Amino acid sequence: MDKPKRIQVAIIVGSDSDLPSISSAAKVLDNFGIAYRINVASAHRTPAKVGTVVRESERQGADIFICAAGMAAALPGVVAAQTIKPVIGVPMEGKTLAGMDALFSIVQMPPGIPVAAVAIGRAGAQNAGVLAAQILAIKEPSIRKKLAEYRKKLAKSVSDKDSRLQKIGLEKYVEIQKAQSGR
Amino acid sequence: MDKPKRIQVAIIVGSDSDLPSISSAAKVLDNFGIAYRINVASAHRTPAKVGTVVRESERQGADIFICAAGMAAALPGVVAAQTIKPVIGVPMEGKTLAGMDALFSIVQMPPGIPVAAVAIGRAGAQNAGVLAAQILAIKEPSIRKKLAEYRKKLAKSVSDKDSRLQKIGLEKYVEIQKAQSGR
Amino acid sequence: MDKPKRIQVAIIVGSDSDLPSISSAAKVLDNFGIAYRINVASAHRTPAKVGTVVRESERQGADIFICAAGMAAALPGVVAAQTIKPVIGVPMEGKTLAGMDALFSIVQMPPGIPVAAVAIGRAGAQNAGVLAAQILAIKEPSIRKKLAEYRKKLAKSVSDKDSRLQKIGLEKYVEIQKAQSGR
Amino acid sequence: MDKPKRIQVAIIVGSDSDLPSISSAAKVLDNFGIAYRINVASAHRTPAKVGTVVRESERQGADIFICAAGMAAALPGVVAAQTIKPVIGVPMEGKTLAGMDALFSIVQMPPGIPVAAVAIGRAGAQNAGVLAAQILAIKEPSIRKKLAEYRKKLAKSVSDKDSRLQKIGLEKYVEIQKAQSGR
Amino acid sequence: MDKPKRIQVAIIVGSDSDLPSISSAAKVLDNFGIAYRINVASAHRTPAKVGTVVRESERQGADIFICAAGMAAALPGVVAAQTIKPVIGVPMEGKTLAGMDALFSIVQMPPGIPVAAVAIGRAGAQNAGVLAAQILAIKEPSIRKKLAEYRKKLAKSVSDKDSRLQKIGLEKYVEIQKAQSGR
Amino acid sequence: MDKPKRIQVAIIVGSDSDLPSISSAAKVLDNFGIAYRINVASAHRTPAKVGTVVRESERQGADIFICAAGMAAALPGVVAAQTIKPVIGVPMEGKTLAGMDALFSIVQMPPGIPVAAVAIGRAGAQNAGVLAAQILAIKEPSIRKKLAEYRKKLAKSVSDKDSRLQKIGLEKYVEIQKAQSGR
Amino acid sequence: MDKPKRIQVAIIVGSDSDLPSISSAAKVLDNFGIAYRINVASAHRTPAKVGTVVRESERQGADIFICAAGMAAALPGVVAAQTIKPVIGVPMEGKTLAGMDALFSIVQMPPGIPVAAVAIGRAGAQNAGVLAAQILAIKEPSIRKKLAEYRKKLAKSVSDKDSRLQKIGLEKYVEIQKAQSGR
Amino acid sequence: MDKPKRIQVAIIVGSDSDLPSISSAAKVLDNFGIAYRINVASAHRTPAKVGTVVRESERQGADIFICAAGMAAALPGVVAAQTIKPVIGVPMEGKTLAGMDALFSIVQMPPGIPVAAVAIGRAGAQNAGVLAAQILAIKEPSIRKKLAEYRKKLAKSVSDKDSRLQKIGLEKYVEIQKAQSGR
Repeated sequence: MDKPKRIQVAIIVGSDSDLPSISSAAKVLDNFGIAYRINVASAHRTPAKVGTVVRESERQGADIFICAAGMAAALPGVVAAQTIKPVIGVPMEGKTLAGMDALFSIVQMPPGIPVAAVAIGRAGAQNAGVLAAQILAIKEPSIRKKLAEYRKKLAKSVSDKDSRLQKIGLEKYVEIQKAQSGR
Repeated sequence: MDKPKRIQVAIIVGSDSDLPSISSAAKVLDNFGIAYRINVASAHRTPAKVGTVVRESERQGADIFICAAGMAAALPGVVAAQTIKPVIGVPMEGKTLAGMDALFSIVQMPPGIPVAAVAIGRAGAQNAGVLAAQILAIKEPSIRKKLAEYRKKLAKSVSDKDSRLQKIGLEKYVEIQKAQSGR
Repeated sequence: MDKPKRIQVAIIVGSDSDLPSISSAAKVLDNFGIAYRINVASAHRTPAKVGTVVRESERQGADIFICAAGMAAALPGVVAAQTIKPVIGVPMEGKTLAGMDALFSIVQMPPGIPVAAVAIGRAGAQNAGVLAAQILAIKEPSIRKKLAEYRKKLAKSVSDKDSRLQKIGLEKYVEIQKAQSGR
Repeated sequence: MDKPKRIQVAIIVGSDSDLPSISSAAKVLDNFGIAYRINVASAHRTPAKVGTVVRESERQGADIFICAAGMAAALPGVVAAQTIKPVIGVPMEGKTLAGMDALFSIVQMPPGIPVAAVAIGRAGAQNAGVLAAQILAIKEPSIRKKLAEYRKKLAKSVSDKDSRLQKIGLEKYVEIQKAQSGR
Repeated sequence: MDKPKRIQVAIIVGSDSDLPSISSAAKVLDNFGIAYRINVASAHRTPAKVGTVVRESERQGADIFICAAGMAAALPGVVAAQTIKPVIGVPMEGKTLAGMDALFSIVQMPPGIPVAAVAIGRAGAQNAGVLAAQILAIKEPSIRKKLAEYRKKLAKSVSDKDSRLQKIGLEKYVEIQKAQSGR
Repeated sequence: MDKPKRIQVAIIVGSDSDLPSISSAAKVLDNFGIAYRINVASAHRTPAKVGTVVRESERQGADIFICAAGMAAALPGVVAAQTIKPVIGVPMEGKTLAGMDALFSIVQMPPGIPVAAVAIGRAGAQNAGVLAAQILAIKEPSIRKKLAEYRKKLAKSVSDKDSRLQKIGLEKYVEIQKAQSGR
Repeated sequence: MDKPKRIQVAIIVGSDSDLPSISSAAKVLDNFGIAYRINVASAHRTPAKVGTVVRESERQGADIFICAAGMAAALPGVVAAQTIKPVIGVPMEGKTLAGMDALFSIVQMPPGIPVAAVAIGRAGAQNAGVLAAQILAIKEPSIRKKLAEYRKKLAKSVSDKDSRLQKIGLEKYVEIQKAQSGR
Repeated sequence: MDKPKRIQVAIIVGSDSDLPSISSAAKVLDNFGIAYRINVASAHRTPAKVGTVVRESERQGADIFICAAGMAAALPGVVAAQTIKPVIGVPMEGKTLAGMDALFSIVQMPPGIPVAAVAIGRAGAQNAGVLAAQILAIKEPSIRKKLAEYRKKLAKSVSDKDSRLQKIGLEKYVEIQKAQSGR
């Protein structure tokens, strides 16, 4: 990750254990050519640092915040309280409660201070990147074009799988899947 | 609601029973001077109409979709599948399952097609309006200014309540609350 | 899977990762001699393709749709919105929320557009196949006969296990089970 | 309800307290001109009667069973165990657990004996009627035609509401709703 | 398991996959010298066999039924519907829903036909055995004596662990635990 | 309630707010002619009193304990820890969590100390009474006879409702229900 | 509520709608003669004010914080992040999700920054007051004495109810309860 | 663990299987130089021993109790019922229900007898230690100082990770994480 002077998105994770999941958000931003910074900063353990990162990010031009956190996931809401930029919250699945704790802590924001919640875990992280691109695309036609291509690729990937399924049949398809997943 | 030629936000509800809740989103947009249209269109009962509304809204310049639905709330995801504009999903609380069905149906979108989920019910509807404003504010300084004022008013409203509490004391405050709510 | 001209059932999965589970539905249909097609088509990533598959399937004579999807599982409902044929929905268990997200997204359909939900995961997939056979059996006496035999075999399989348990005793039975499962 | 000699659907409810909800299933069947019988019979309190009703219904020609029950809702599964006709299960919402108990008890059937679960409560009951019509329509073109009309009416009802909303505006619409619901 | 002429308890499991868990119930009964039979019989797949086992068991003198089942666990309730003997229900944990489906299906019995639910899985199975002993002890002083001893042993086992903890200290205790569990 | 010298069942509730619900258990015992005592004693607020009631009840000959409690419902388990008599636990529905807190607190007992959990709330309370009767019936033929009659009455009540439904039809039946419930 | 110079406890609520519930905490503190202040300050709407209240409270000598909030209840955790004084969190029940959202948001704090969670709603609020007294009693023998009396009164209140129940009997007791609650 | 004459904290676990998790509480106390004892004592299997440990601990000067238990986790509440010292409850995650059973059993205490609940599992255990230190710090300035240092270290650990992330970049950071976790 090269840290550019000007950024469009600031990613903040509450713990470095969230980095493997959130890296799918970063990958999406990389693919769309969207500049971002990424920081580890905890709403509970380093509240001051969260504030610093928010202000620094805004000075660097960040238009969107992506915040990932698990358990009593206060980070997205705490960031939302300190900026009027849209904040996307990614609930991380913890070891207990099947991810419901982080989801409820992120999505159930009180009137006036919204957080845009996405799905729990890695799938949500990827979508946080896409949602950020969709928001930025409102003013940047170049991203809009990339999004259209991304959607096509996404659709093509599904269609290619379907074509392959039609060609080799269900039994063989599943067999190969099992072989590849090593089970 | 006057239906302007040019709009910035398109609100779609799956059922007219969602209108009382979603009207808090509309009120926010009104307050911010953001032009919008609002339609009843069901992903399950009028799928074609949903497509028509999406395309029309895009032609009118809509940059954001706000979709409210209850139960197996497919509407936000179905709209998201037909546009690359950001889609905000508002889970409506039904008569059963305490709103968890709509929340899960909206927030757990698969990789590639995000929906920005907000809180269940009226609180979420209001926040959908604010989130839309925050997104539009990225490119429109005038909304940014209004958002800053909105936040101040929000904070002031809390502070005013606190001041009043300090002045009249807890007992009297609660007494008046009870009298006002008619319980 | 050979793709016959005429089909009775159309299986659609939202992702090829659902194929291992759904293959137990396919196996049931194979056993009952019920012709079917199977496609990968996503309500969110390839909405147009879903429509195409539905129409093609209807032209091929499909009387029933079986749709499997995970997370915010919109596929069964989206298919149900485009056909008046009965749609069976199979909730796939994802990595989070213990499968409740897909279940709620599939079963909680709004009035007017039903989906017939079955159990989460592989057990549900198998039952989707059986339910399809039960529906087709209404007009096809040959399937009715096979269903009666299937039920007998099902019952016999349980009875055989019981007989074996009576013969070798609980301790030995469990011992062999453990050995076979490699634990 | 006139009890015809020949029936196509048998409705069974576990308790007469389920009758107000299930009457929306009956209404749908009435509208489609589908003959049915309806009985109160409890899987736990009158297991023998359940068997009698199942066999009688089959003799009368019933092709589909609709079973509604609350709490540990065993009725749909118990009926499914005694017939190879498709069984539609309607989970009733009880006073506790927000309807999740009946839903899980109905949808999570073991491999081999499916129940087609629909939504919790009145919405599910209505859909049970529609699903029954969709299944019968496979062999009866007359019902198919009525279903197409039903769908159109359903869509029109949504569109009419939308038209009215466009005409009178959101504020007035919600006002009238409130007045009508007497709140 | 030797199948005695006279029995006091009848154990029924819905699937042979429940046998490893339920064997802890059997072990308890063995330890208390309580004669029992154990059968695989499914409420959904072999409803007639369930009835046969219930009647046979009653003829053999069974005073208590222990029924274990997973998913839409109808077995305990179905047995309870056919006997006035107390029925103990053991919810088995399935692959989805964290065992909540079986628990709700077993515990939420309608007024008039109780099932005595115990904990989910192996712990519950063991307790089903103990509860059966406690019920039989009401009329059999010999079991009462064994129960008192069982309780003492149970308490002693906890106390012995505490003594060992006091002797070797927490660190060493946990170390040995980890070594023994092979992690 | 006259407090007899000799009792067969001891009912303990954690709070006097549980009395309206638990009175359906008492009514069942009254109907079966089973002598009982009933006490308010809280595991958390009056732990010593719980012990006293348990010991007194045992001296009076109590063979079964019925314990009702809400929230973190420790009472049934705490009683179970002090007696080897079977303990029936009735989860009371509180104002939050839809009764799941009390259910989990009662049913998930650790290995060795079972509690027989019944349904949440009033339905469970009634069943606690019936279950107690079923347990006592093991040694008392007179109760066995009454239970058989109770079952018949239960079945008859269901059948009578069905007969009435057949006679007056669904529409009229529901109409009368609504009139009676005053809605 | 008179606002003393020196305080021992600082109560903060996220919204003035939490005041009726939290007043039971205040009442407990009043009864124990524990000086406190109470403020409305929202973690999301007035984050700066929260910091001010925390610092002011510490300057006034506050040894404990009681924080009540609903929905994505970040307040207790945000306060905990700014003080090393113990923070008691009271989850408020909202209109949806049965209070689980606030509970999970408060109790699932990450390692290092604990919040002491109590029960949802009014019961939890009262217990927050008692817990604060228990903590302060560690160093203040006078509070210890009052706590012992409080416990006695608590126990006596339960015992008095039991005595009354023994005296007037269950039927009359419940009758009077119903009359008093006006139902 | 050396067992000192004077202690400040008493840790009680319901089962020795809770020791690996609770050892993170012990480690925190060790780090803060807080003397404690630790016992295995079960509310259900050794209720008398729980009482003994509570009284002994109080005689040794214990000011706080930390109680860990799983399933129907009655231990913290049972201890709370026997002492006016603050009790911290740590819900252990069992094999089923994702830890919700223990959480609800611990946090939902009735009015008057609070338990201070922390997060489920190991994270909660560590926080129980920290919360105990925070409570003791009210009267012991030396602990207060250590807590301030602990907070700084906690913050520094997060900041150090962030610094490292800035230095080596996201990709490399995640790569090393994966290598270290051996996946």
